[in-house]
Amino acid sequence: MSTLTKTFHFEVLHRSTKSNARVGRITTPHGSFLTPTFVGVGTNGVLKSLGHDESMEAGLDLMFANTYHLMVQPGEDVVEKMGGIHRFSGRTRPIITDSGGFQVFSLAYGSVASELKSQGTKKHSNSVQKISEEGVKFRSYRDGRSILLTPETSIGAQKKIGADIMISFDELPPYHISADALKKSFERTHRWEKRSLLFHQAHPTDQALYSVIHGGINPDLRKKSCQILRELDFDGHAVGGSLGKNRDEMIEMLTYTLPCLPQEKPIHLLGIADLPSLHSSIPLGIDSFDSSYPTKAARHGTLLTDNGTLRIISGAYKDDPRPIEEGCSCRACRTVSRSFLHHLFKSSELLGLSLASSHNLYYMIRFMERVRQKILLNEL
Amino acid sequence: MSTLTKTFHFEVLHRSTKSNARVGRITTPHGSFLTPTFVGVGTNGVLKSLGHDESMEAGLDLMFANTYHLMVQPGEDVVEKMGGIHRFSGRTRPIITDSGGFQVFSLAYGSVASELKSQGTKKHSNSVQKISEEGVKFRSYRDGRSILLTPETSIGAQKKIGADIMISFDELPPYHISADALKKSFERTHRWEKRSLLFHQAHPTDQALYSVIHGGINPDLRKKSCQILRELDFDGHAVGGSLGKNRDEMIEMLTYTLPCLPQEKPIHLLGIADLPSLHSSIPLGIDSFDSSYPTKAARHGTLLTDNGTLRIISGAYKDDPRPIEEGCSCRACRTVSRSFLHHLFKSSELLGLSLASSHNLYYMIRFMERVRQKILLNEL
Repeated sequence: MSTLTKTFHFEVLHRSTKSNARVGRITTPHGSFLTPTFVGVGTNGVLKSLGHDESMEAGLDLMFANTYHLMVQPGEDVVEKMGGIHRFSGRTRPIITDSGGFQVFSLAYGSVASELKSQGTKKHSNSVQKISEEGVKFRSYRDGRSILLTPETSIGAQKKIGADIMISFDELPPYHISADALKKSFERTHRWEKRSLLFHQAHPTDQALYSVIHGGINPDLRKKSCQILRELDFDGHAVGGSLGKNRDEMIEMLTYTLPCLPQEKPIHLLGIADLPSLHSSIPLGIDSFDSSYPTKAARHGTLLTDNGTLRIISGAYKDDPRPIEEGCSCRACRTVSRSFLHHLFKSSELLGLSLASSHNLYYMIRFMERVRQKILLNEL
Repeated sequence: MSTLTKTFHFEVLHRSTKSNARVGRITTPHGSFLTPTFVGVGTNGVLKSLGHDESMEAGLDLMFANTYHLMVQPGEDVVEKMGGIHRFSGRTRPIITDSGGFQVFSLAYGSVASELKSQGTKKHSNSVQKISEEGVKFRSYRDGRSILLTPETSIGAQKKIGADIMISFDELPPYHISADALKKSFERTHRWEKRSLLFHQAHPTDQALYSVIHGGINPDLRKKSCQILRELDFDGHAVGGSLGKNRDEMIEMLTYTLPCLPQEKPIHLLGIADLPSLHSSIPLGIDSFDSSYPTKAARHGTLLTDNGTLRIISGAYKDDPRPIEEGCSCRACRTVSRSFLHHLFKSSELLGLSLASSHNLYYMIRFMERVRQKILLNEL
């Protein structure tokens, strides 16, 4: 067992008098940041079409990288050899990795096929070879080798990758599942999370480890999951598993789940950061949100503004000399007009994707700054 | 006729005692720059995957934009309405446009099909409808409308686009052509160039106009072309037409052609800027070179260094912690290792294309800086 003093630290700076929203500060080996915060998704170790120089300058506090993708390419051993994900990628600010389980189980159940399609490959399907108590064995779509993902190998890989925050290995049950199968999955996922923590404690590093709260949209299971996991020495909790089939189900679930979690630890919501969900869930007390939505939407020409989304490919912007959004100081708004950005998209110029991504990322960062200000003023 | 005082000005600052190489200064409405210089190709008004903020910071003196592409998308009227190519695109430094003829005749003869394929569309073929003394009529691959390109409409479009330097409209003959057909093309191209100049003089703007020297690899025709065009009031001369089937033929052609051009006007070589060609042709007295090669090679993972090219996709770079080139201060070398750039290419991350392009552009700019220094020292 470790006697290492952990850098990771969460402090609540202010609780709103109007809701359960709070402003906090998370300290990691790569610096501190304020919460609630938007976590940009850099699947392969970097946000799509945005360099770390750009995303750090824009003020991205925390980046989410995918262990599954990094295990397949370049492999966790290469990342470790290159000095860990920060030195390897050049990002000097905090990074969080997931367990790899989400992607692997998505392959098995096909429930987030759209997420995988965006990787530009069709070779993923049917690559899961075996799921057992030990873990899950899958075939790398890149070189065909078998990879065994277990609580121990997931945390082992995340330690080699070296992010500031890791996430324990869990099982992602499909949305449509029998009550009996859900119960078995529920029990196994908690055994896997305990094994994740044990392995982490047996191989101490200056990294934090979050649990994943499960239970689908069953209030009793969610409460039970919170009871089990809050008793263990996790540094924070992520709300995961099935989040319901729509936003209303998710908000309802969060409403009865969050009060069961300890208030002194940070709470992350996995994979959700669209603006309506943020509006609804920040007052419930979520501290961080990851989503590839803002950058993915940008690559499809959908730009976020305070007046709603703007489809830059629309002919309405062909000769519009204004920036995407007045007053925005992102790279796109500083350097090009709507007219030129429209032209870049019409001409299939890759620069259009970078500039649009830059804007949407910056928008999310500014949005969260304003959220924190409102919480501090008890206006939210 | 115009009495406008032109900003455009070329001054030879030093002639090498060792060769016909020279260092000059070209002044345009958007600033001055030194020659010999590398001209980056921004087909649609911007270099591929590099913003103007990046290319200007890297020190790109002159950018080459393609009139054909801009006429098709967004159309020269939109560029004019947006205040011209500088305000439209955000580049504040000098820009040169071609006449559009090269692309249109490529469609007719298919001789530079590879250039067109790189535009990512197969719809170009057979879009040329008619070639006559007046000009060439083609169908826009984008919206099917007929576009008539003549000396007058080409210069008219280039005036609306508003680059600092324009190029007169010429006919690009195919490489394999009968002597009789070549003679007819040769005569017509000079009539078209004269019409280009007349139209320019009749519609004065503070833009320079270069001629295009023709004659293929026939010394008599090249000399005759120089004789005809040097008598006219062009601001500079571009060597174009068929440049031969290989580098040796081109260098031989340049060797007998360049002495026939006036020494007090700048000389541009159209579409060629690979390093061996630069090494061979700078001592002959060329002042500027445009080519999409450095950025195109970058997108294919071929990086330029003083030790030759480096194929970043090679497994040799998987765990190479060094920058692309020691001592280089481009964005790529400042922010990522060979290892991470290799990973970006293996992961099909668009950022890899931007960073590689940034390096190759910077390399070309640095290369030309060193060339100018050598000329000033009479070492080249």
